[in-house]
Amino acid sequence: MSTKGKAVPLSVPSMPDAETGAPQRRRPVRAAERWLLKKFLAAIGNPPVDLMMWDGEVIANHKRATIATLHIRDRVALYALMWDPNLRFGDYYASGRLEVEGDFQRFLEAVYRAGNATRGSGIFRDRLSRLAYRPRPNTLRGSKANIHSHYDIGNDFYKLWLDRDYMQYTCAYYPEQALTLEQAQVAKMEHVCRKLRLQPGETVVEAGCGWGGLARYMAKHHGVNVRSYNISHEQISFARARAQQEGLADRVEYVEDDYRNIEGDFDVFVSVGMLEHVGVDNYPALGEVIDRSLKDNGRGLIHSIGRNRARLMNGWIEKRIFPGAYPPTLREAMDIFEPNELSVLDVENLRMHYAKTLEEWLERYEANIDWVRETYDEAFVRAWRLYLAGSIAAFTTGSLQLFQILFARPRDNDLPWTRAHLYEK
Amino acid sequence: MSTKGKAVPLSVPSMPDAETGAPQRRRPVRAAERWLLKKFLAAIGNPPVDLMMWDGEVIANHKRATIATLHIRDRVALYALMWDPNLRFGDYYASGRLEVEGDFQRFLEAVYRAGNATRGSGIFRDRLSRLAYRPRPNTLRGSKANIHSHYDIGNDFYKLWLDRDYMQYTCAYYPEQALTLEQAQVAKMEHVCRKLRLQPGETVVEAGCGWGGLARYMAKHHGVNVRSYNISHEQISFARARAQQEGLADRVEYVEDDYRNIEGDFDVFVSVGMLEHVGVDNYPALGEVIDRSLKDNGRGLIHSIGRNRARLMNGWIEKRIFPGAYPPTLREAMDIFEPNELSVLDVENLRMHYAKTLEEWLERYEANIDWVRETYDEAFVRAWRLYLAGSIAAFTTGSLQLFQILFARPRDNDLPWTRAHLYEK
Repeated sequence: MSTKGKAVPLSVPSMPDAETGAPQRRRPVRAAERWLLKKFLAAIGNPPVDLMMWDGEVIANHKRATIATLHIRDRVALYALMWDPNLRFGDYYASGRLEVEGDFQRFLEAVYRAGNATRGSGIFRDRLSRLAYRPRPNTLRGSKANIHSHYDIGNDFYKLWLDRDYMQYTCAYYPEQALTLEQAQVAKMEHVCRKLRLQPGETVVEAGCGWGGLARYMAKHHGVNVRSYNISHEQISFARARAQQEGLADRVEYVEDDYRNIEGDFDVFVSVGMLEHVGVDNYPALGEVIDRSLKDNGRGLIHSIGRNRARLMNGWIEKRIFPGAYPPTLREAMDIFEPNELSVLDVENLRMHYAKTLEEWLERYEANIDWVRETYDEAFVRAWRLYLAGSIAAFTTGSLQLFQILFARPRDNDLPWTRAHLYEK
Repeated sequence: MSTKGKAVPLSVPSMPDAETGAPQRRRPVRAAERWLLKKFLAAIGNPPVDLMMWDGEVIANHKRATIATLHIRDRVALYALMWDPNLRFGDYYASGRLEVEGDFQRFLEAVYRAGNATRGSGIFRDRLSRLAYRPRPNTLRGSKANIHSHYDIGNDFYKLWLDRDYMQYTCAYYPEQALTLEQAQVAKMEHVCRKLRLQPGETVVEAGCGWGGLARYMAKHHGVNVRSYNISHEQISFARARAQQEGLADRVEYVEDDYRNIEGDFDVFVSVGMLEHVGVDNYPALGEVIDRSLKDNGRGLIHSIGRNRARLMNGWIEKRIFPGAYPPTLREAMDIFEPNELSVLDVENLRMHYAKTLEEWLERYEANIDWVRETYDEAFVRAWRLYLAGSIAAFTTGSLQLFQILFARPRDNDLPWTRAHLYEK
């Protein structure tokens, strides 16, 4: 894949030479392939989709009213899809050798729903159950590589579709449906600040700060001093420049380092959208970091994508978009808190808010699609479209969750009696 | 122990004959005993307490300002305490062979705090770590026996100190500090109903209904039809009579049966204060009951005492007061939800509300202490005082938590966007 602009993480595998070119496309579908395909469709829950094969043959889903047609452009795409749908659907969709005719969003949701409802069956059962990918390890060095590949694509790219003011690449909060993305991201940050009961003059440590928006918001609107850690060089540079520009450099310090190297004593620990990149094996280490960084009156909040049931990240997203990513269940997340006897005060699931946030991002992304195509290429355009639209589907179908977990030291009795303060105007 | 009134669960072990009577009390404390006692105090975290021995000797805690004096009336009480403090402190306190001079509440909190801060040391370390008790099994028959021993002491006893209107033997909710216990229990039920978004005409199944107060409140104030399960005969009889009396018998059905035998399809599952009696081994079974009882739009709430870190119930409470009881961590509670892909929407920790509820109960209990003494006996009076006061200490020191866990089907998108509706007047 050519990249005209900055380095991009997406690498679509090259096609085997023997199978490329127009001639092979005309070799018709064989009976055995038809049979195999039906077994495959059954194994992935028989989604309400028709198939249009490379030779023009339509394999209709007679069991359900269909909502879209999946075009399979060549034989290699067919076998790749059946061999490893988690990974290869994305790759072949990006390269255009799989195409969806009809409502793309409804197609993705239907595929998620069908997949959620089944555990696989018949000849594909074992195969599907082995298709889960171990995420790439998040060692100190591994994390740096993983994070670089996603977040250092170029700030200009993210500016196209994130909120203008704070560049929040995490779930927004929509207390009212009519909010703009900009307003909803401010509402999210304010919601987090209220949960943490920030007091002017307090110290906050942030693990994983993105482009530094939350740190600046906290300093500006709640009068706290923030030290924020991030291993993405581009993000840290951007964050420092913004803090300088806004006259906040004396109250916000951005540190280009791993959360495992956090040092100091703080009133508050906060991490919004980093846990997805930490990896379950490192939760005890994260818990120790929190425990050694928090004062006796300390409290904290972790905001993360999660799951109802333990399952690995979709293979394509983990390989091509978010290396090393893994969304935990609440049970898994407890590895952070329980060994350190941190007391969970409040868990809020904001799943539908992430679907709405992603819809906003996708809309802005599509509005800027020409710039993306010129800067990168068509495969990049299609890959990020699939990633954003697929993520919407994951949240609307309940495949992914969004948890905000508020916690405190176990013996701190200076707690608000209700959560009403979160909802005051 | 004589029981003048109804059967009581408390059975203080009889003293060994050789060690009773006045003469042995005068045999002075030996040097080896003094040494052992100091090791023991260190192992339990060296609480800020002086000791007054049976021969009048005071063993002062020189390391800290003390807040109470523990009187050890005889040698047997000393050895029993050192051998198994979790169980024997309660037994010997109840029989009066251990006595606390000073602020009893502060004494209990200091002991909890000291214990929380240490894992034991020296010669008592292994011993203390083995003192955790496996709770009695909650098989169908075991549960019945366990529940009978606690809840069938007699309704008259609980009427003395629970709220008059709904007889709620669970944590109340104090959105305002000035609420009476009666108001706070109504506020708790309303809080639960709002979380569950009850609609008139919906069906609710309740697992473990106590004296049936919540079911009646839901039917009366939210127009739902409730089927409530409980294996305590006395409670079910009381609940049925009350529902009849209040003209609610057509909308509330009380079933004297185990939660594992719940049958039917319901919009809502609710369980307030039963999970403590279920036992971790039965969480998957409880999860299956919920899964098979809930309609597609189904949602539910579990309200339970819990822990920040897995630890068995205090031995004395588990043996003498609440047989089979075990307060789970959030991680353990997830065994109910994750296998059935139930989606956790909201977790609220109401720990301080339970401390306040227990303070109200203890105050009412003390106001009726003469009735209790006449109906039962002095050991019963002291045992329940210790149980209520000790529970206050467990909540104020963060040794126990109170979790309300709200959940729904994973694909239900008809969710409120915020929790503001819980806080509207």
